[in-house]
Amino acid sequence: MSENGNDAERKLCIICSKGTIDMAYPGLVLANAALMEGIDVTMFFTFWGMDIINKKKMNNLKATPLGNPSMGMPNIVGILPGVTAMASAMMKKEIEKLDFPPVDEFLETIHDAGGKLYACRMAMDMMKLKKEDLFSEVDDVIGAMEFMELSEGAQVLFI
Amino acid sequence: MSENGNDAERKLCIICSKGTIDMAYPGLVLANAALMEGIDVTMFFTFWGMDIINKKKMNNLKATPLGNPSMGMPNIVGILPGVTAMASAMMKKEIEKLDFPPVDEFLETIHDAGGKLYACRMAMDMMKLKKEDLFSEVDDVIGAMEFMELSEGAQVLFI
Amino acid sequence: MSENGNDAERKLCIICSKGTIDMAYPGLVLANAALMEGIDVTMFFTFWGMDIINKKKMNNLKATPLGNPSMGMPNIVGILPGVTAMASAMMKKEIEKLDFPPVDEFLETIHDAGGKLYACRMAMDMMKLKKEDLFSEVDDVIGAMEFMELSEGAQVLFI
Repeated sequence: MSENGNDAERKLCIICSKGTIDMAYPGLVLANAALMEGIDVTMFFTFWGMDIINKKKMNNLKATPLGNPSMGMPNIVGILPGVTAMASAMMKKEIEKLDFPPVDEFLETIHDAGGKLYACRMAMDMMKLKKEDLFSEVDDVIGAMEFMELSEGAQVLFI
Repeated sequence: MSENGNDAERKLCIICSKGTIDMAYPGLVLANAALMEGIDVTMFFTFWGMDIINKKKMNNLKATPLGNPSMGMPNIVGILPGVTAMASAMMKKEIEKLDFPPVDEFLETIHDAGGKLYACRMAMDMMKLKKEDLFSEVDDVIGAMEFMELSEGAQVLFI
Repeated sequence: MSENGNDAERKLCIICSKGTIDMAYPGLVLANAALMEGIDVTMFFTFWGMDIINKKKMNNLKATPLGNPSMGMPNIVGILPGVTAMASAMMKKEIEKLDFPPVDEFLETIHDAGGKLYACRMAMDMMKLKKEDLFSEVDDVIGAMEFMELSEGAQVLFI
């Protein structure tokens, strides 16, 4: 992957704190790109980002135009029942057109390429999730202090 | 705290730009964890993040299911009067159950452990805040250039 | 600008993924402050952040109180037609009062000071944008892997 020996030392940690489609994919795309560049990648899922590794939710993430005027839909329309589902389906279709895989396949690709996937213990407790609720490729459940340890020397993104 | 001499050099700067409960606690938790690992911590509050250090608002931060489908509440319900208050109270209760202190106590703990707390001058002006509106543990009001100076060599998170 | 020779080596990369006024300006302000400190700056626009460099949208970014309880407006009011426009106009006025220029001028200042501006190829495709839809000062359209390459050794912010 990398022709540069120094890259072997480069580390990227991505904290995923949001569970919407439009905030899940940037983390997945960057993790994947980094791995393809030979960079060591760790993803840490916390708060709403837990949805990305929650077996029941990961392939059914949502998007809403509410609170996001960039989507160009008036709020008075955005609140109507069915609009979140419609916006979610539209965004999923756009992402498929770009040849990005669904969330579970994407995480599997990242894991297979050596990316580490960690769930936040505190968020597990807050959302009453158990290890068996999580996607099988998740490496471990860790606390914030452990995350600080493994992110030493890394570039860290908070998404 | 840290048994590792090198850790003394490690620095973490957290830019807090959001004022909701669910985006305030990740910064507080990470700051606290980093300090417990012997890492030098600076928090910089700007834009909506000013609410976290605003004496009148800090212990009354809110959460809303609107624009956040991860909370699992239909938008048509989310807009009803009282729903933001209800969602905020629920989230506060969940955070208490995890034994995290209220915002003012948490900031005090962080400050007592050596964490630095800075308010953004531009955001102060935009929100017409004075120094006396801020939590007493805030170290100083600084500009973006000063923040750039003190974040030299740090891992920087934008929340 | 910088009296410190070492600063010449310092790099800051800002990933702009959001297109609201209140999430566009923090990136612009930090980029500008970093350049004034002699730091090498790269801005990478992706997802909703494309609006910041979209000629038709950049000077008409919006803000909405929906999903942002920090703005202090009840959601039941926030959904009314015209409220997003009003909130956007109010925020624009506050930003002008602080003597910050409109988005196009701000990006031009950043570019003139040596800041690099890159659009994300994937986001271009997703939003059906062409090079001619982008602000003239944008240096290039690049992929996520190229972004990973040019952010080597940088402090990276995800906004």
